[in-house]
Amino acid sequence: MTDTAIVREVGLRDGLQLVKEMLATGTKLEWCRLQAATGFTEFEVTSFVPPSVIPQFADAADVLEGAQKIDGIRPSVLVPNLKGGQIALDRGAEKIAFVLSASEEHNLSNVRKSTDASLAEFSELVAARAERGLENQVELSCAIATSFGCSIQGEVPEARVYDIAEQLADLGADELNIADTVGYANPLQVRHIFTELEACVGDVPLAAHFHDTRAMGLANVVAAVEAGVRRFDASLGGLGGCPFAPGATGNIATEDCVYLLESIGLGTGIDVSALLEVREKLDDWLPGERVEGRLMNAKPAKTYRPAA
Amino acid sequence: MTDTAIVREVGLRDGLQLVKEMLATGTKLEWCRLQAATGFTEFEVTSFVPPSVIPQFADAADVLEGAQKIDGIRPSVLVPNLKGGQIALDRGAEKIAFVLSASEEHNLSNVRKSTDASLAEFSELVAARAERGLENQVELSCAIATSFGCSIQGEVPEARVYDIAEQLADLGADELNIADTVGYANPLQVRHIFTELEACVGDVPLAAHFHDTRAMGLANVVAAVEAGVRRFDASLGGLGGCPFAPGATGNIATEDCVYLLESIGLGTGIDVSALLEVREKLDDWLPGERVEGRLMNAKPAKTYRPAA
Repeated sequence: MTDTAIVREVGLRDGLQLVKEMLATGTKLEWCRLQAATGFTEFEVTSFVPPSVIPQFADAADVLEGAQKIDGIRPSVLVPNLKGGQIALDRGAEKIAFVLSASEEHNLSNVRKSTDASLAEFSELVAARAERGLENQVELSCAIATSFGCSIQGEVPEARVYDIAEQLADLGADELNIADTVGYANPLQVRHIFTELEACVGDVPLAAHFHDTRAMGLANVVAAVEAGVRRFDASLGGLGGCPFAPGATGNIATEDCVYLLESIGLGTGIDVSALLEVREKLDDWLPGERVEGRLMNAKPAKTYRPAA
Repeated sequence: MTDTAIVREVGLRDGLQLVKEMLATGTKLEWCRLQAATGFTEFEVTSFVPPSVIPQFADAADVLEGAQKIDGIRPSVLVPNLKGGQIALDRGAEKIAFVLSASEEHNLSNVRKSTDASLAEFSELVAARAERGLENQVELSCAIATSFGCSIQGEVPEARVYDIAEQLADLGADELNIADTVGYANPLQVRHIFTELEACVGDVPLAAHFHDTRAMGLANVVAAVEAGVRRFDASLGGLGGCPFAPGATGNIATEDCVYLLESIGLGTGIDVSALLEVREKLDDWLPGERVEGRLMNAKPAKTYRPAA
């Protein structure tokens, strides 16, 4: 097999978002550097949000600047609005991950505006990139949060997800990141929604962002793979939680996701054993945090063979 | 959808196997009774092995006798050899789960005889059932352990698994339980092996027994579902470990498995919310044990709808 997949490390962003203990900028960059050495090229390193909202990202500019100096990786930053996007452009981000929610209520709660208003801001961000002449230098990805359901609103009509995806594709999004923000997705739904999306967004690449809140994280990865998805977000040690579900677990664990993908024949370019060594350091960096993931304890099977 | 699946609770056997604290017979039966009330019909309640090997099952005869009195369930017992099978027949077990390993080295380590010798004992057990005239009263299931790889031997040739399965089918096994004893399986392999097995064992029903050692437990369930499997073993709270992998997690968690199956349209007859109430009691019954499973903390999604 020669098929490949990209795993994007989002631990520095989604993983740290709810962590109360401030991780030093130097430690964040050390994490990024060490993990890059295991074969990762994609990292979401921080978020341009007001420090009053998420103090953990008060050092966003420094983290981005430091990550930009790490060889061989492309650091992306999450932005929840146009203003964050403009800062990211100004700071020379090569990839910007805008986020809006398919659930109207989630969008209102998250960024205090309607989903349509967020779509309009994404459009303005595309224009801002064009004004700077950066169409070929900066990739604009857009995450559609709560695409599989919402813990506030409940059901999110799938037609709404397709509608938003089409609008984003038309506006010029370079990637759509379909996110199960609250861990509601099941594999049947994942395969169905990604298959429908493939049909309605043309050649815009789809990425998948799953949480393991209800134990279906990796089953959803497999379902997305079956639907043709080859880009996955994951967080080292499954770091990250959900503000609406205390005690619930966070993103799928990077090390488990890489191990799964390699096991089913999708090359990631990542050395699993080296990755576990970086994972081990998380315990020192965040001694108070609950870290998840199975592979760390179990270690790769004797029969494990990475994909080609 | 009207498709259904059977989840067999093995917590009282596989789950307790490595638990050092002796659970009182009455507590075991309370567990069984409470969980039966949530819709379970199948339980592996104990194992007929010498108490010197697994002290937790010293009360095997009492547990079976007590479970036989619980309305609406069919308690099965695990036996590792002919002697255990004869005791189970004598005790009036309605379902006996014989176990042997596809891995020669695992079988030697587990029951100190070759896999072929275990196959011969299964054949004798079939004969013993016939001698007692119990062909229509007692179901003989056989588990093929380490079907996806072995932590001692490493690779287990899949041809050997098919060969054993065919022999067991020919000998008169009423069910084959294909077990990933050490958590080595991946979804690609699961779908392939079950698809091949379906072709070579005729109409003998296949069951799947997965561990979540490397986080692929539920992804493997979905893969098995896709290959036509409708019988799954699971352990409440993911109880159970692996003697060869300290710190590694055990069986897939019953509550997570039921929730997954219902979510993808397979009716189990089980009330998930009621099941979580039983799961909560595990913490009292086994205060020192590490209990797994995601649904307990996260609770069902707002959008959760049980299958038909």
